[in-house]
Amino acid sequence: MIMLNKLPEKTIERLSQYRRALLISLNNLKHHIYSHELAAMLHITPVQVRRDIMLIGYSGTLRHGYEIKELINLIGAIIDSEEGQKACVVGSGNLGKAIVSYFNGKRTKLTIVAAFDINPDKVNRVYAGVPCYHIDQMSKIIKSDNITMAIMTVPGSEAARVAESLVIVGIKGILNYTPTPVNVPDNVYLQEYDMITSLEKIAYFVKKNSQEF
Amino acid sequence: MIMLNKLPEKTIERLSQYRRALLISLNNLKHHIYSHELAAMLHITPVQVRRDIMLIGYSGTLRHGYEIKELINLIGAIIDSEEGQKACVVGSGNLGKAIVSYFNGKRTKLTIVAAFDINPDKVNRVYAGVPCYHIDQMSKIIKSDNITMAIMTVPGSEAARVAESLVIVGIKGILNYTPTPVNVPDNVYLQEYDMITSLEKIAYFVKKNSQEF
Repeated sequence: MIMLNKLPEKTIERLSQYRRALLISLNNLKHHIYSHELAAMLHITPVQVRRDIMLIGYSGTLRHGYEIKELINLIGAIIDSEEGQKACVVGSGNLGKAIVSYFNGKRTKLTIVAAFDINPDKVNRVYAGVPCYHIDQMSKIIKSDNITMAIMTVPGSEAARVAESLVIVGIKGILNYTPTPVNVPDNVYLQEYDMITSLEKIAYFVKKNSQEF
Repeated sequence: MIMLNKLPEKTIERLSQYRRALLISLNNLKHHIYSHELAAMLHITPVQVRRDIMLIGYSGTLRHGYEIKELINLIGAIIDSEEGQKACVVGSGNLGKAIVSYFNGKRTKLTIVAAFDINPDKVNRVYAGVPCYHIDQMSKIIKSDNITMAIMTVPGSEAARVAESLVIVGIKGILNYTPTPVNVPDNVYLQEYDMITSLEKIAYFVKKNSQEF
């Protein structure tokens, strides 16, 4: 097993994206790939790709580039946990369901094993292979199933309360998709993503580009 | 109207997030906010907040901090388009629906006016106030409704084809939520977001943190 110091966030993000691109290439029956091809798929520079891959101790050949399967396995050894990691989704609305079906079967080492909601129409049903429990059972299920990560898709008004409960019950990583920022202690890794921010950024550059022409 | 050069992507992202946080504070009946409060809400440093706000030509007072309403309006003048901008969602599954209901009524200058799908159960229905059309009508509706941005939530296998059609019909900004990266010409602003990457990043830091303790 490779032991590396903690890599920067951006590198981890790119390694995950390289793997995604490599899996697509493998699906297209490719066996080797050049850094410039990988770079083009991710809209970054070939230098960046070579630097990242070198950082994890791998190098391709000038003639064939990288061996795709080998590189996928190596990235897995670095970013995946050997025993696998379990996540839950809190909030089983459209977004919660989209996430569950999106993940289903995509990664073996990272699985969504439970969803939580308060709506009786959703509780005790299975969606895309994932059971939905009442939020009152959250603490019990997270402990018994060894869940370490949570994806929050509840309404913004519930965000703070849900985040607090998740931290109390021992969740170590939170992905917050609600429109409301939350606070967690330093030992919990938090990532927040707001769709409006993404679209507003695009709107700004669309506006600016149209002013230039 | 304020005329500024094109601001960096990260600044635009933060301005959008400041506005989101300011709107939450305004809702909580606050009128003024200090840079350190805004910073705490977004998990960044007060220096960063002050630098961004100074960059857009605004400053608070030592005594009261920033005037919330004024700052919201100023950010709007910079990142919003005066005449408003219209977006569509391509793919009306769970994620497409989540996005439509998430946006509905949240911003006046940025609206989702159409959704597209191929599923006859979805076509010609209205979800959260947004009509869903057959994808065959995409080009016609985008032109007639003056839609400049598109959010892609189709299956990964359709991503390339949909992106190509969107570019041909004149879309200037694309937010790609499919698992497959796409290519667009330089005059189209593209942003890609993959949920698996976000969760893999969290999984990595949860694993690393647990090894440290």
